[in-house]
Amino acid sequence: MRIVRTVADLRAALAGARAGRIGFVPTMGALHEGHLSLLRAARAENETIVLSIFVNPTQFDEAADLTAYPRTEDRDVELAASAGVDVVFAPDASEMYPAGFATTVSVSGRIAETLEGAHRGRAHFDGVATVVVKLLLAVLPDTAYFGAKDAQQVVVVRRAVADLGIAAKIAVRPTSRDDDGLARSSRNARLSPDERRRAAAIPRALGAIRDAAAAGETDAAALRARGLDVLAGAGIDPEYLAVVDPDTLEPMQVVDRRALVAVAARAGPTRLIDNVEIDPETGR
Amino acid sequence: MRIVRTVADLRAALAGARAGRIGFVPTMGALHEGHLSLLRAARAENETIVLSIFVNPTQFDEAADLTAYPRTEDRDVELAASAGVDVVFAPDASEMYPAGFATTVSVSGRIAETLEGAHRGRAHFDGVATVVVKLLLAVLPDTAYFGAKDAQQVVVVRRAVADLGIAAKIAVRPTSRDDDGLARSSRNARLSPDERRRAAAIPRALGAIRDAAAAGETDAAALRARGLDVLAGAGIDPEYLAVVDPDTLEPMQVVDRRALVAVAARAGPTRLIDNVEIDPETGR
Repeated sequence: MRIVRTVADLRAALAGARAGRIGFVPTMGALHEGHLSLLRAARAENETIVLSIFVNPTQFDEAADLTAYPRTEDRDVELAASAGVDVVFAPDASEMYPAGFATTVSVSGRIAETLEGAHRGRAHFDGVATVVVKLLLAVLPDTAYFGAKDAQQVVVVRRAVADLGIAAKIAVRPTSRDDDGLARSSRNARLSPDERRRAAAIPRALGAIRDAAAAGETDAAALRARGLDVLAGAGIDPEYLAVVDPDTLEPMQVVDRRALVAVAARAGPTRLIDNVEIDPETGR
Repeated sequence: MRIVRTVADLRAALAGARAGRIGFVPTMGALHEGHLSLLRAARAENETIVLSIFVNPTQFDEAADLTAYPRTEDRDVELAASAGVDVVFAPDASEMYPAGFATTVSVSGRIAETLEGAHRGRAHFDGVATVVVKLLLAVLPDTAYFGAKDAQQVVVVRRAVADLGIAAKIAVRPTSRDDDGLARSSRNARLSPDERRRAAAIPRALGAIRDAAAAGETDAAALRARGLDVLAGAGIDPEYLAVVDPDTLEPMQVVDRRALVAVAARAGPTRLIDNVEIDPETGR
């Protein structure tokens, strides 16, 4: 496994790999089972696997969140090697954003402005779209793998990739969850035991909504109320709990087709997001 | 020579050409000698030449200018064939900007906000950067060729290409001029004989500034005054006549190093731009 710090070294490392398929897993490090499941998917479908580790400052809306974001590169590199990664791309911020950097890739419209866009600010998805485009153009993968936990990020990235004509497939893998149901996230490491217990209400709330939908409830307001009840029982007042179209992120009043239920909530100072898709036709 | 209308057909047409160098000349059509000089440069340095013809609506700030922009595709295709073009990429707007398109590549800071950015509005260079990035990602050339007439466009494009890490060299060729000195432009076709005579004061003004600099004048205000005199003699009050650093586009007060003198002015309803570089060290 090679570890490279610059785009030039990355391109050199991949020069011999272009005949085969290249799979790419972009991360901010602090690897957990969710990332490893993406790497397994990439390993199964490609000849060469690239993992990027870059805590992208431009997508953080809170300086404290950026500062507190866990950085565990030595351990990440060990996990990457075990997972069969061929190249780790771990640039400094000065490599990604050298002096004079002035370009932003921006996705407009509801998909970037609602939910996370509304609560973290427009700059969040500008930062995401810009760094993902840069990473995709640096790696030029056949397929890039993302986790379903970041559902809106996937919608925004797919839009930017399609609009700019970047020839990479965007693959989405199911959210990886701990035994208590909590979606795996690097930020979970910051939860106190009590916060962790309360945070587990987030996936329970999503589960309650899914169960109610499976039992035939189609009224989005009623579904939301079920989830909000569960969250309130754990003392959690979410930033949002929304029932939206999975592609357009338009709010849905009647869940008569596939829907995305997305939530953002804090447990103590730590902000967590999660989501689940419900489909009245399959009852799942 | 092949003519393709979609990115998919373009990629198919170029699939066999990747072993050699690919040269790319992006245009809005209405080809003139300036474009042909770019094609000759591309022909001399590459195995495969791609010409794009796309009147990009998103970079026009005036609807009337977009409507009046000359469209001469049949003649352009003939000229391209004579110039040794291998592939003409002539997409419709719906291919470049399909329904739901929502992504903008934006360059911030003075290089995009001054001169043309100030007079045509921020959307102009957003439109330029977005379409050029899309075209570069569609063609994936080794070198893309631009004319020096669009000096600020080159600065903005170079910034976006470097920032996003697009692996294409941006080459700039000298401005092509008619016998009366007027920079060749597709918009010149819209000038009446009288407007054309007055427009010829634009290159004369730049020439007067260059001559004064060559004679030792280093005061930017004095240099500007020389140019404004020439323009005033033809009844032309320019939108701007600026002496700026060629890389940062910061205004210069003293021309003690390489400088870009850029002008935008109307002759009748037609807006024209031109520029010249002056270098006190070489006197040219």
